[in-house]
Amino acid sequence: MRDFSANHEALSINTATVRKQWPLDEIIEACARRGIRAISPWRDQVANVGMKAIARQLKDTGLALSGYCRGGFFPAADKAGFIRALDDNRRAIDEAKSLNAPCLVLVVGSLPGALTGAPAHRDIARAREEVFEGIAQSLEYAVEAGMPLAIEPLHPMQAADRACVNTLEQALDICDRLDPKASRGLGVAVDIYHVWWDPKLKEQIFRAGGGRILAYHVCDWLVPTKDLVNDRGMMGDGVIELKKCRGWVEESGYAGFSEVEIFSDHWWSQPGDYVLDTCIERHGRCV
Amino acid sequence: MRDFSANHEALSINTATVRKQWPLDEIIEACARRGIRAISPWRDQVANVGMKAIARQLKDTGLALSGYCRGGFFPAADKAGFIRALDDNRRAIDEAKSLNAPCLVLVVGSLPGALTGAPAHRDIARAREEVFEGIAQSLEYAVEAGMPLAIEPLHPMQAADRACVNTLEQALDICDRLDPKASRGLGVAVDIYHVWWDPKLKEQIFRAGGGRILAYHVCDWLVPTKDLVNDRGMMGDGVIELKKCRGWVEESGYAGFSEVEIFSDHWWSQPGDYVLDTCIERHGRCV
Repeated sequence: MRDFSANHEALSINTATVRKQWPLDEIIEACARRGIRAISPWRDQVANVGMKAIARQLKDTGLALSGYCRGGFFPAADKAGFIRALDDNRRAIDEAKSLNAPCLVLVVGSLPGALTGAPAHRDIARAREEVFEGIAQSLEYAVEAGMPLAIEPLHPMQAADRACVNTLEQALDICDRLDPKASRGLGVAVDIYHVWWDPKLKEQIFRAGGGRILAYHVCDWLVPTKDLVNDRGMMGDGVIELKKCRGWVEESGYAGFSEVEIFSDHWWSQPGDYVLDTCIERHGRCV
Repeated sequence: MRDFSANHEALSINTATVRKQWPLDEIIEACARRGIRAISPWRDQVANVGMKAIARQLKDTGLALSGYCRGGFFPAADKAGFIRALDDNRRAIDEAKSLNAPCLVLVVGSLPGALTGAPAHRDIARAREEVFEGIAQSLEYAVEAGMPLAIEPLHPMQAADRACVNTLEQALDICDRLDPKASRGLGVAVDIYHVWWDPKLKEQIFRAGGGRILAYHVCDWLVPTKDLVNDRGMMGDGVIELKKCRGWVEESGYAGFSEVEIFSDHWWSQPGDYVLDTCIERHGRCV
């Protein structure tokens, strides 16, 4: 298991962590100043500053990407919507390629409209079929582009509105069906916040192995958790056994970045510099 | 599949649903007035009115129990705490017996102290071992008393503080280990709110079969859900496919009560009579 206490070479910052404080170009600067070696940016953040400017800034600063957020949201109320989702995923793959990302993270979606409180239907099995079909079709394009796709299982509390892939086992089942030899670049993003509770976590991490794990995200589960989306904890403030879990992930063969991703009204209300400094300190001590 | 639209013979009311409006004796009266045939009361509600009074009132009104809430909360910070938990579970079994309950529902507990925001440790695997041991020891006593134990898997968002048994598969694995022939009265309480999201739900319901399913609870998952504990929805107000799920449960052999259990700040703020009338109407139309 790598020693994270000596330096923060393995640390990546998911830029949602400080999205309320800074636009992406300032986030990149703040990360570069600290010797942070990688980030994982979101599409809207890139678009707000401009793809070309961000690509240039990444090159100038030498920052790598640990992933690109995000593709997915495949299920739609009708066929036209599904086709639009596929189009959008192709654009996301192109953008990921432009930024030299190692993978496009897929938040797969679920009941269409649920995110705005108006679900078009309640058939989660149908949503899961459309997700499978959406990944299958996107994978064809991704393979040509040479862009790996990382399915991110989301916590079951987000099953209705954000992702109907809710366990690592379920994500790996999709991988096994669409890329049985793990030769086409389909894998998973393991965000420990989403899967820490799973009694089959260790077993499924070893099933995934290094070949299927394309990204590893960390934060912490607070007790109590006050919001289903924006109350994630800083590493060390919650109950996830972060070192134990990272041990399994590394033992399985993963040797990539450890990406801090914190959606938190609390941390968004703090100065960005303080948040990044805390991420570095906690990453070295608690992850 | 039974027709719930004709009458509410199969309806049971978990008395937590109107616990802020009435003490238990008034809840029983209000249920009896409506021809509701069963309830599932909580230990604190029984204690507040008095065990003897409640037993007599149940007899007088002819109301049955669909379960008794609750045993469990096995994991403890130390050995003395674990022994106290076992004692407490024996008392719960005795009480369930006094009230002629068909089963004692187990909310198994998780990290000790987490419920009050001060977890004694973060080792969920240890909590799971203690839960297994606690159920094993309680089962000895329960078998002698003739009181079935129903393990209730709780939603993964409650894995840190309320229950570290979070899927039906995990609960059934415990049943298979401790009661492989399903001859000792160990089974599960399926609360559809906790398990609706599970991609393996149908498969595990059929695995459970009628013999292992000792109770079936219903309410609904709201989009958005604003609280991790007290924002459950009235049946029909959310996205759970209640009829489809009940179909599986009945096809698997379950023919018992369908118990409405709604923890909700909203519904607790409404008049109790209105809540019960709504439960009856929605149960007939949406479940």
